[in-house]
Amino acid sequence: MAKQPDLDDFRVPYFDGKKKNKFSLDDFDPAAKPFSTGTKESDRQRLSEIGAELDVFQERLHAQRKRRVLLVLQGMDTSGKDGTIRAVFHEVDPLGLRIAPFRAPTPDELAHDFLWRVHAQAPAAGELTIFNRSHYEDLLVPTVLGSIDEKAFDVRCRHIRQFEELLADSDTTIIKCMLHVSKDEQRERRQARIDDETKHWKFDLSDLDARKQWDKYQAVYRDALAATSTEYAPWYVIPADSKTHRNVMVAELLLRTFQGLKLDYPPAKESLKGVKVE
Amino acid sequence: MAKQPDLDDFRVPYFDGKKKNKFSLDDFDPAAKPFSTGTKESDRQRLSEIGAELDVFQERLHAQRKRRVLLVLQGMDTSGKDGTIRAVFHEVDPLGLRIAPFRAPTPDELAHDFLWRVHAQAPAAGELTIFNRSHYEDLLVPTVLGSIDEKAFDVRCRHIRQFEELLADSDTTIIKCMLHVSKDEQRERRQARIDDETKHWKFDLSDLDARKQWDKYQAVYRDALAATSTEYAPWYVIPADSKTHRNVMVAELLLRTFQGLKLDYPPAKESLKGVKVE
Repeated sequence: MAKQPDLDDFRVPYFDGKKKNKFSLDDFDPAAKPFSTGTKESDRQRLSEIGAELDVFQERLHAQRKRRVLLVLQGMDTSGKDGTIRAVFHEVDPLGLRIAPFRAPTPDELAHDFLWRVHAQAPAAGELTIFNRSHYEDLLVPTVLGSIDEKAFDVRCRHIRQFEELLADSDTTIIKCMLHVSKDEQRERRQARIDDETKHWKFDLSDLDARKQWDKYQAVYRDALAATSTEYAPWYVIPADSKTHRNVMVAELLLRTFQGLKLDYPPAKESLKGVKVE
Repeated sequence: MAKQPDLDDFRVPYFDGKKKNKFSLDDFDPAAKPFSTGTKESDRQRLSEIGAELDVFQERLHAQRKRRVLLVLQGMDTSGKDGTIRAVFHEVDPLGLRIAPFRAPTPDELAHDFLWRVHAQAPAAGELTIFNRSHYEDLLVPTVLGSIDEKAFDVRCRHIRQFEELLADSDTTIIKCMLHVSKDEQRERRQARIDDETKHWKFDLSDLDARKQWDKYQAVYRDALAATSTEYAPWYVIPADSKTHRNVMVAELLLRTFQGLKLDYPPAKESLKGVKVE
């Protein structure tokens, strides 16, 4: 029987002051399925089980109104951010879930510091919030396009660490997932979307530009992950060529996170004990 | 075989300048189950079918990024606003759904006009937004408590009609549901929550105050519904003593609404035709 994999083996080493460490994305095979339960069918079954558990945890989180949970999803186009949200949170009560999508910043947003619009979307007490893309876009894209240099990159990374530390010190549990797909898999998914005309609304020809800079994006991702994986806001690399594996792994990670929070319902209210409604 | 009920039989007559019309909440039996398919089991089955259809419509809404849909849920405590959201939108992609809950206004919110905080939550192009309570609370509560008089009530109703007309003229389809429960049913649900200590977080002893003013709330609800049901933002009375009936009826209403929108995927992009991803 295969050894049960350890989620921590997919955690990016914590930043210790040097971003040029031994961490490499090449050490993670995008096609690997370490958390798969065997078949797609059994993966879906497992996902459904975890979903039901997450739903219970989320209700307790909401009932307590103290802790906050933030899931950050990043990845190249077609890596499956939307699909992950759909699949993993299918069973979770929409009342307790908030999705914050980050697109290219508007002129208003650009008129502020890069964390301004992000801070506004931070989860409130009792909330489970998902960042669909995030402040990391404002680190990755300008770096690849050359509009910020390495020094500015390092400054942004420092601000991100400090910002995430503020959230963590304010009862927020942060989990960050990089959905790791191969260039080949992206080609297939892209082509499928082009060949299906009902999917055309999902993207534009200009979206292919990022693909042309694939290697540069991978290098900047490496540096960004290495410089911002911390004990209070760790990054995980999620092999994502298999959609069902990707979903199960993100779900397992969240389940472990919630289990670690030791959430219980708040104590019963003395004032309500024995009350009879008239 | 029973005559198939008509959703429009549950629509509050459109306001024609006089709120004192023949509309009465007493004409609607909270325990009725006109849209039930027979058993709880078959209702759940029907709900699941509609949910899958709503999911498809919602994706098209999102793809088009033109129309907006707003569902307003109102009702006395325990009438099932949370439960409706959970049950009806279970199948809908959380990516395309936004829930805006309205609680008692904060000092900041009170420092503005009563529609200020509501306008900020209006659905954007392509969005399906649910108001869990709404601007109607700011009409009902102050009226029952006596902090606004009948003249101020009428002024607020006028502002609400005008505000909703602005949204409707801006591609928003508005559906408003009053979840109609009986006072007896509320007692049972309340008592059940008191007897289950894990549910204590859901309310406070002071929540029983509104129950003491039950008749007054019902009268103000009647006037509010009569004065704000319009062609562009109709009110529906949802018999809600049966949870499964309530869910199915709200779902049927939404399904009909989406069917009327004639949503299709946007046309294929010429620029993408025949493109091969490298």
